[in-house]
Amino acid sequence: MARSSDDCVEVCEVGLRDGLQMVQEFLPTSAKIDWIRCEHAAGMHEIEVTSFVPPKLVPQFVDASEVVAGALALPGLTVVGLVPNLKGAERGVALGVHKLNFVMSVSRTHNLKNVRREREESVEDFRRIADMLKSLPAGSRPRLIGGLSTALGCSYEGSIAVDDVCRYAQALAEAGADELLIADTVGYAGPAQVRAVFGAVRRALGDAMALGAHFHDTRGLGLANVAAALDCGVRRFDASLAGLGGCPFAPGATGNIVMEDLCFMLESLGMRTGVDLQRLLEVRRILHDHLPSVPLHGALARAGLPTGYRPAGRSPAAPVGAAH
Amino acid sequence: MARSSDDCVEVCEVGLRDGLQMVQEFLPTSAKIDWIRCEHAAGMHEIEVTSFVPPKLVPQFVDASEVVAGALALPGLTVVGLVPNLKGAERGVALGVHKLNFVMSVSRTHNLKNVRREREESVEDFRRIADMLKSLPAGSRPRLIGGLSTALGCSYEGSIAVDDVCRYAQALAEAGADELLIADTVGYAGPAQVRAVFGAVRRALGDAMALGAHFHDTRGLGLANVAAALDCGVRRFDASLAGLGGCPFAPGATGNIVMEDLCFMLESLGMRTGVDLQRLLEVRRILHDHLPSVPLHGALARAGLPTGYRPAGRSPAAPVGAAH
Repeated sequence: MARSSDDCVEVCEVGLRDGLQMVQEFLPTSAKIDWIRCEHAAGMHEIEVTSFVPPKLVPQFVDASEVVAGALALPGLTVVGLVPNLKGAERGVALGVHKLNFVMSVSRTHNLKNVRREREESVEDFRRIADMLKSLPAGSRPRLIGGLSTALGCSYEGSIAVDDVCRYAQALAEAGADELLIADTVGYAGPAQVRAVFGAVRRALGDAMALGAHFHDTRGLGLANVAAALDCGVRRFDASLAGLGGCPFAPGATGNIVMEDLCFMLESLGMRTGVDLQRLLEVRRILHDHLPSVPLHGALARAGLPTGYRPAGRSPAAPVGAAH
Repeated sequence: MARSSDDCVEVCEVGLRDGLQMVQEFLPTSAKIDWIRCEHAAGMHEIEVTSFVPPKLVPQFVDASEVVAGALALPGLTVVGLVPNLKGAERGVALGVHKLNFVMSVSRTHNLKNVRREREESVEDFRRIADMLKSLPAGSRPRLIGGLSTALGCSYEGSIAVDDVCRYAQALAEAGADELLIADTVGYAGPAQVRAVFGAVRRALGDAMALGAHFHDTRGLGLANVAAALDCGVRRFDASLAGLGGCPFAPGATGNIVMEDLCFMLESLGMRTGVDLQRLLEVRRILHDHLPSVPLHGALARAGLPTGYRPAGRSPAAPVGAAH
C-alpha cells in the first residue's frame, strides 16, 4: 500500500509500565522521572508512566502518584496510566492523567487467570469506567483506551479467533472507548496475522476509531508486524526503550518492541515521529546505570545511527486528542 | 498482497561465508562440516559454504576445498561458493560446487575500495566467468548468481540510485546470470526502500529471472525488509545461523538476518521452508562451543518455540535449478 511521505505516526513509551512490571528490581522514583523527562526532551509525545494496580500486587508501581506528578509537569506530554478496574480509574482521574488504558484479554482463559473475570464481566468493568468518565466535566475528562490483550495469540489457548477480537473491539467501542489498542501480549503474531486481525477490526469499526498496536518482539517479528500494521492504516504504536520487559511465558525472551528501532524504521519509511533518535539513544544510560542486571536490547544502539543520518523530519505530530 | 498458503520459500545459509569472514577466530574445518551436516539434516537445501578468495586475504577460507568436499557428500544439498573473480570461479568449477556467487557493488566507491575495479570492469569479470561456464558441458555447469552488494545503501556514498541497481542487474542478467541477488550489505534499508528497489528490478527484468534478497539486520529492520520483499514476489533469502557476522562499518552491530528467526517468520506467514526449526536451533551449539567469544543473536533462540508449535509444513521446496 502506498504511503505518503509526510505521514505522522504516534509512538507511546510503555517501558515504565509494561517494561518495569517484568523487572524485579525497583527503579528509583527519581530515575523514572528522569527517564520520562529525558524522553520528553527527545521529542516523545506520549508515555505510559505507571499502572494503578494495588502496590501489594506490583511493588514497582508503589510510587505511581509521584511519577504521575513528575510527568504532568512536562509541557505537551500526554501522560497515560494503566487501570485494572474502576478504582484504578478513579485514582488516575484524581491524579490528573490524560489517558487511562484499560486492558482485558480476548482469550477467555487468559482473562480468567489474569483478572478472574469472564470477558463479559471485563466489558462491564470497562463500561463502568466509561460511565464514570462521562460524568466528569469535559475539561478534566481523560481519554479512555480500550486495550485488548492476547488478541493475536495466547499462551493458554494458542490461536485466537479474529471474530472474537472484532466482537470485543466493538463491545469496548460501544461502551465508550476513545481509542482501541490491539496487543500481541505474548509475541505470537506474524505479519500475515497482523493484516488479518487489524484489517478485520478496521472493517468492523470503521475509519473513525483510533486504532493502536502493541507488539512484543518475543520471536523477532515485532518490526515486521509494525510494517504490516502500517499497511492496514495503523498510526499508533507502543514500544519500550531498549525493549525493556519480557514475557512471563518465555523466560529470557525480549519484551516490547524496541522504541529506538521502531522510530528508526518509521523514519526510514519517511514517517515522522517527532523523536530525536540520538537523544533517545542517550536515555538508555539511565537504565544502564540503575538496572545493571537487566539486559538492554536494540539493534540501533549496537550499530549506531548511519553516518550523516537525516531523519524524515523533526516537526512533530501534534498530540492527538490529549485532554490537556 | 495476498499470498497463497502453500508458498514455498528458499532460504540459503550464508553464515559459513558472510558470517565467518567477519570472525577473526578460525572455525576448525571439522566444525564447519559439522555445521553444514547438521543444517542439512534439519532440512536446509542450500548453503554457501566458503569463499574462493586467496587464503592470504581471508585465512578463514584456507580450507575451502575440504569444506566443499564435505558439503558435496550430502545428498540434495545445493553447495554455493563465493567467487571474487575468474580464478575463483575456475576453482569452484574444479571442486564441483553447484552455484557460484559473484558479487559486485552498485556503489562505485565501494566497488573501487573493495575490488579496485570500476563497476563496468566488474561486469566484464562477470561476463568472463559466464562465458567460461558456457564452455562447460551442461551436466557439470554450475549455476551463476549475479550479486549486487550495497544495492540499498552504502557507507561511503549514502543512498544508491534505484536506476543504478536496475542498470547493473540488467547488465549481469545479459551477461549470463542464472539468478540475481540484491544485497543490503551494510543494513541501511527500510521496507519502503525494499519495495522501491525490488519492485523496480522486477519490472526491469521481468518475472522469469530468479531474484533473491540478502539483508543484514544492522539496525533491526531485517525481517521487516524480508516481509516487504515477499510482497514484491521475492522467494529466495540469505540468512545466517545466529545472525553470525557483523558489519565492518558498524562495530558491534549484528550481521546477516538470523536464519532461525527468518524461518520462523516465513512459517508464521504460512510459507514452507522445509527447515525443522527445533533442529535448526540445536545447530547453534556448534558455534557456541567453538566460537565462545562470538555473540550469537536471535529472538527465537531466547524465547524458544511457542508451546505446541506446528510449522506451516514439513514438505520441503524442491531445490530449484541446482545443477546436480
